Order: sequence, then C-alpha cells, then structure tokens
Amino acid sequence: MRMVDLIEKKRDGLELSEAEIQFIIEGFTDGSIPDYQMSALSMAIYFKGMTERERAELTMAMVESGDKIDLSAIEGIKVDKHSTGGVGDTTTLVLGPLVASVGVPVAKMSGRGLGHTGGTIDKLESVAGFHVEIENEQFIDLVNKHKLAVIGQSGNLTPADKKLYALRDVTATVDNIALIASSIMSKKIAAGADAIVLDVKTGAGAFMKTLLESEELARAMVNIGNNVGRNTMAVISDMSQPLGYAIGNALEVKEAIDTLKGEGPSDLTELSLTLGSHMVLLGKKANNLTEARSLLKQAIENGSALRAFKVFLESQGGDAKVVDDPSRLPQAKYTCELEAKQDGFVSEITADEVGTAAMLLGAGRATKDSVIDLAVGLVLRKKIGDEVKKGDSLVTIYSNFENVDEVKEKLYENIIISSGRVEKPTLIYKEIMA
Amino acid sequence: MRMVDLIEKKRDGLELSEAEIQFIIEGFTDGSIPDYQMSALSMAIYFKGMTERERAELTMAMVESGDKIDLSAIEGIKVDKHSTGGVGDTTTLVLGPLVASVGVPVAKMSGRGLGHTGGTIDKLESVAGFHVEIENEQFIDLVNKHKLAVIGQSGNLTPADKKLYALRDVTATVDNIALIASSIMSKKIAAGADAIVLDVKTGAGAFMKTLLESEELARAMVNIGNNVGRNTMAVISDMSQPLGYAIGNALEVKEAIDTLKGEGPSDLTELSLTLGSHMVLLGKKANNLTEARSLLKQAIENGSALRAFKVFLESQGGDAKVVDDPSRLPQAKYTCELEAKQDGFVSEITADEVGTAAMLLGAGRATKDSVIDLAVGLVLRKKIGDEVKKGDSLVTIYSNFENVDEVKEKLYENIIISSGRVEKPTLIYKEIMA
Repeated sequence: MRMVDLIEKKRDGLELSEAEIQFIIEGFTDGSIPDYQMSALSMAIYFKGMTERERAELTMAMVESGDKIDLSAIEGIKVDKHSTGGVGDTTTLVLGPLVASVGVPVAKMSGRGLGHTGGTIDKLESVAGFHVEIENEQFIDLVNKHKLAVIGQSGNLTPADKKLYALRDVTATVDNIALIASSIMSKKIAAGADAIVLDVKTGAGAFMKTLLESEELARAMVNIGNNVGRNTMAVISDMSQPLGYAIGNALEVKEAIDTLKGEGPSDLTELSLTLGSHMVLLGKKANNLTEARSLLKQAIENGSALRAFKVFLESQGGDAKVVDDPSRLPQAKYTCELEAKQDGFVSEITADEVGTAAMLLGAGRATKDSVIDLAVGLVLRKKIGDEVKKGDSLVTIYSNFENVDEVKEKLYENIIISSGRVEKPTLIYKEIMA
Repeated sequence: MRMVDLIEKKRDGLELSEAEIQFIIEGFTDGSIPDYQMSALSMAIYFKGMTERERAELTMAMVESGDKIDLSAIEGIKVDKHSTGGVGDTTTLVLGPLVASVGVPVAKMSGRGLGHTGGTIDKLESVAGFHVEIENEQFIDLVNKHKLAVIGQSGNLTPADKKLYALRDVTATVDNIALIASSIMSKKIAAGADAIVLDVKTGAGAFMKTLLESEELARAMVNIGNNVGRNTMAVISDMSQPLGYAIGNALEVKEAIDTLKGEGPSDLTELSLTLGSHMVLLGKKANNLTEARSLLKQAIENGSALRAFKVFLESQGGDAKVVDDPSRLPQAKYTCELEAKQDGFVSEITADEVGTAAMLLGAGRATKDSVIDLAVGLVLRKKIGDEVKKGDSLVTIYSNFENVDEVKEKLYENIIISSGRVEKPTLIYKEIMA
C-alpha cells in the first residue's frame, strides 16, 4: 500500500477500506507516513468527506493507536458525558453527583485545558484539599463504592488524534465534520465509555454557530458511537448566551451546589435533568425517560444528590463542608456591579465574548503556562429576555484587582439592551438518537 | 501573514494576492513554511484552482526563487520551444538547426532526465566528441556566431518548483492545470526565454490524454506567458502514436538528419515546420506565418538547415561527418524485424507502451542511475492507417542483445491491425495564440 495512492483515492471521492484507514493511522502514528502526506489527505477529506463506515473505522483506528482505559472492573454500564464546549457550562459538576446518586457509575477522566475558565479538575480544586492524583486502582475502587470519582488524564491515549489535531490546526483542516466527530469519539472510547451522552452546543458561544452544523456534528457522532457498539445519543443545546449565571471556577462550584439543592438557575437545572435522564436511561437504571427524570428530581428533592457530592469531595480529600458553607470556597477581594445604562430588555449576551471577559479577570488559561485564579469570575444577574431598569445590576464582577474597566467595557459591548420585549432563547433544540 | 490563513483562504475559494503568493513561495523555498502546509495548500489548489493572475504570479515567484539565466548578451529575440513530452519526439533536434539557419537564435539549456529515450543531450552525445560541458561565456559566443548552442543544466534554477514538484508527486496533487502550467512556464522563463512556442501533446502517449485537457493546459500556459511579458503560443499535436519513425538516441539523430535533408517522415517534417514557423514569427524573422514557413522550406531545400546542424555539431566538438555518413553513429549489434501476423490496416500504435519497449532495449533511463545504450531502439515501418500484408515488417528492432522476445511481445500487444480501412490521425489539432 502506498499513501500517495490512498490520498488520490480520497481526492477522487472514493471510499477508503478499513485496512487502508488502519494503514494510514498506524503509519502516521509511527512516523512512517510523513505529515505532508497526512495534511494533503486531510484537505482531500475536507473536500470529499468520509462515509459513515469510514468515520467509524477512523475512530477505532485512533482508539487503537494508543493506550485504552480498562474500566471493566467497575460494575454497571459506564456512561460518559461530553460537551462540545461553551461558556459557564457547569453541567459536569452537577451531573456527576446527580446520576451517581441514582446508581449510574461515573468514572470521569478529566483535564485542565485552555479556555474561559479552567477545566473540571480546576473547578473542583477550588475545594480545599480536593485532588485527582490517585492511582487507577483507587479510582476504580472509589467508583465502585460511591459511583463517582474523577482522575487526571494519564497514559498515552489516542496519540494519532493528538498528532492529527495538531496538524489540522496549522493546515486549515480543522473544520470538517468527519474529522471533528472521529476525534471526539475516539477520545471518549479510549477513556473506557460503554455509552455516551453528547451535549452539542449551538450558537455564538459554541464551536458550531448554526443549528444545521450542530445537528450534522451531533448525528455524525451518534452514528459513529452506535456503529462501534457504544450506545450514543446527543442533545443540541443553546450556547447563544452563557449557561446558568456563573462563569468562574469557585463560582461555578457554588452554582453546582445550588443546583444540586434544587436552587440553581433554571436553564442549568433543565439541561442537567435532560442530559442526566439520558445517562440514567443508557445506564439502564430506568425503563424510560420519564422514569429517569423523576428519579433525578427525587434525588435533588430528598438531598441524595447533594449528599453524593459531599461524599465524592471527601473521598478525594476535599473539604466537604463547602457544600453547607460556600464561603469556605476561595473568595475574590473585590466585587462590583455592572449597572444597566438604560431601561429595556436584554436581547444579547454574546457567550464567547463574556467568556473572554472572565478570562481577563484570570478565571481561565490563555496559554498552557497561565496561572488560574480560582476565586474570580462573573455572575450574570440578567439573561436574555429579562426586563431591566437603568441602574440594575447586569453582572457581578468578582476580581482580585481593583480596576476592572477593561472587563466592564467588554461586557457593555456584549450585553445588549433593546427597548422592545425579547423572547427567551430555546434551551434544548433537539435530542438525537441512533 | 500566517500560512494557515492563506491555506484557509484558498480552501474557501478566494484569490491569493501577489504578496501572499510571494510569501508562500519564499517561505517554502527557505524552509520557514513546512512541507505539510504546502501540501495542504496544493490540495486546496487542486480543488479550487487558481485565477489567471494567481498563475502568473506563482510562475514569477518560482522564477525569482533561484538563479535566472541572463541571455541579454545574445543578439535577437531568444525563442524557446517546449514539448510536454511524448515518444520518439525528434523535433528539438530538427528545430534547432532549422530555425537557426534562418537567423533565429537558439540558446538551449537541456537535460538528460528519465524516459523512453534519453533527453536532447543524450541524443546529441550519440555524435562522437559532442559535449555540452561549456562555459556560459562560450555558450553565448557560440549562439551569437552560429545561432545555435546547447548547454547542460547548471545553476540553481527554480528551486521552489523542484521542491514543490517533489512534494506534489507524493501527495496526489500533480494533476492540476494551474500547478502544471506554472511549473513548466517558470522553468522556461528562468532559462532566459524571451518568447516561447509550446508543443502540447495529446493522446494515449501524452501526459494529457484528451484534447480537452490538452487545450486547457495549452491555454493556461499561453496566458501565463503573455501575462508575464513573454510572447507565447501553443500547438496541440497528436501523440496517439509515436512521432516520426525512430525511437532511440542515435536512431533519432539519423532521423533528424534525414528530416533536415527533406527526407524525413512526413509527420515529423510537418510538425517541425509548424512549430518552426511560429518560432521564426515570434523571433521576428518573418512578417507572417506563410513567409516563415517558406523561409524554413527553402532552408531545407538549399541545404542551409543541414549545414547549420554540421556547424553546430562541430562547434561543440562533435564529429560532423555523421551528417553525410550516419554509419559513424553508434550501431546496434543486432537488428530484427517485427513481422505482421495478418493482413489489414494498422489501427493503433500505443505510444507510451511502444516507448516502454524501447526502454526495455536500453534506450532510456528507468532510474537516475540507469546507463543508456545510445545505439538501440525501434524504427517503425508502418504507422496508423497504413495497409500491411502478413509478413511485412511493422518495426525494426535495434538491440545489443540477441533475445528480444519480451520486446516483441510488448510491441505485438500494442500495435493493432484491423481488417477495415483506418483513417490517419490528425497531426495538428489546434494552434493557440494569446
């Protein structure tokens, strides 16, 4: 087999065989296929796409390119949730204890990463003493005991995907549904998921700006998952404005606690219940969605979800008292209010720009070496559709420096107040099953 | 400027600016733009093409990437001829002395290369003593004195093109009109041509198999040439069967001598007169094509074309007596006839396969290190449309080994005799001017 012939085949719109896809990924991983051939192939795929079969085979070839996490010692169906990423997305913090409390095992491998706020691990580290540096054996033990544990990324998972992503990033071949879907799914499968619930964000603050694109990506991933024997479904949810109110690490932990108590923002609560119901269903802890949802609502009402969060924090060394006394979380030195300059209705809160404002405060990492300030961030006081009076607070800014003029300016530019009444945006657009 | 943005721009079908094209070619040449980005761009160009302006700018950026031959010390308009390559194409050997004899200066830089036979230099080296290892100064002197000289390739001409071609070759991006046309034209312009006559071959033995493709390539090159200030025209000529009769180095020299005497094959003679007339016209040695053609016919009839060949051979150390006594050329040890197995009409002589048969005899190079046998080759006795009787010779095989069964088999497979009368193929399909 010669790589040049396979590039030509894809260039001409033909389908690659399983053996050909394996040859490509193995060769690219071990370096026998050079970057310049892989980038030419990626561009050919950009133009010609991949069939469902090719996507599934590419995904599995990338899974096979490195280590795979073996979660077989954990009882039950391991259901993972993946979000394509947005601003102020606290669902992971809520969903872990929520579905664990009804018996679905959550064995979460998580990272730090770049972004408007830290990753799940950074957020959890707002809780004094909490740490994810645990052994695999202990991790599996904890999940079996408490149905929930989080571990830092370790091992050499999907090296082909890492290498390919880095190459696509500098060759203008990121933006292709087949390659995006295979990349995401390969990571989930290598991390040991038996079933996967996907939260595909749509709107200004999401990677996919339109509903059409989001749906295409969601369907691509759902098809891959089911074609490789992992029950997979996707929810398409709104990211035209940030989810919930809080954007920041400790601030989101507090918001998660509120939500687990039944006192969280309505959109975060609703999305958590929707994603959670599907996790419970795929985890076979309920017979249908209605039953799953009522189990989760019960868990919130009777306090078992909140208790699961406490037990989880404690089991990984964290100060579980934060749950009852959130003032034990890191506190910012300064707070200040962003006051509305006019009467009217909030018509836009551009999610990614508001996220950038949080990053300016130090809530997220711009580069790998940035140090995160866990205490700082933003709490929205109004969301799209809300009525405001001049002087009302739109946002509370939590900072560790006094002058936040730059942050305020960015927020004023991206929170638009109109004179006419504005509809609240749809939260959940679609649920896509196999 | 970032290469990734330029790849994206082309991927999205937008036009690159002159500064962007220069940035790309300079960066690729000096290594600051890596191969993996250039191959992704090449694939984007494969799908999205380049506008006329982009093609001209790419051509000139490649010209500027290395040395340029300065022929300004040669009096008159330097007209170069380029063929896209075929089998048994002896036109360069004929055209040099032919147009030189009417005053058009021919300063030919030539190579050896791979193929069914050697390159122009290999062929000329069939003449004992002839050599192209001359100094630039002497080369220019010779052209001024005799209107014709040939020098081996030297200097670092169009390194960007060489590097890009090597990359395209292994990334399935060779087959693109914009890139092919820019590559050819950049080499001609760097070699110092003021005006260019292109012989674009079409048919089974050519790189472009269909008339449509050949015409597209011809127009692309003619446009580039004229857009960068070089008078350029193209002839589209047949390569469904080999041109002339001879395929082999010394054999083609003999055929060139015959043609310069007015006794050559009719197709080779006609194509030489056509291409030559355009060279004479672009070289401003005639006022129109009719005048140019009659000048050339005269030069053949009155012996001045043949004399120009003798003077040329002598001036570069060659044994000019070969012109009157072709037996002084290298002779093969064995000859044998390929006899027709049936009565009928020749309907096909697949040019590239017949070329491969010549290479099996040793007439051409399969790899850079192959040693050429200058004496061997094929002389066709029949061409498409000719009537044959069983037992007639179709081809004379000149070889230096006795057993030519493999060669015969290949020839029988590729010279088809049909029972019905067959039309001779059109020799010249089109002449394309600016």
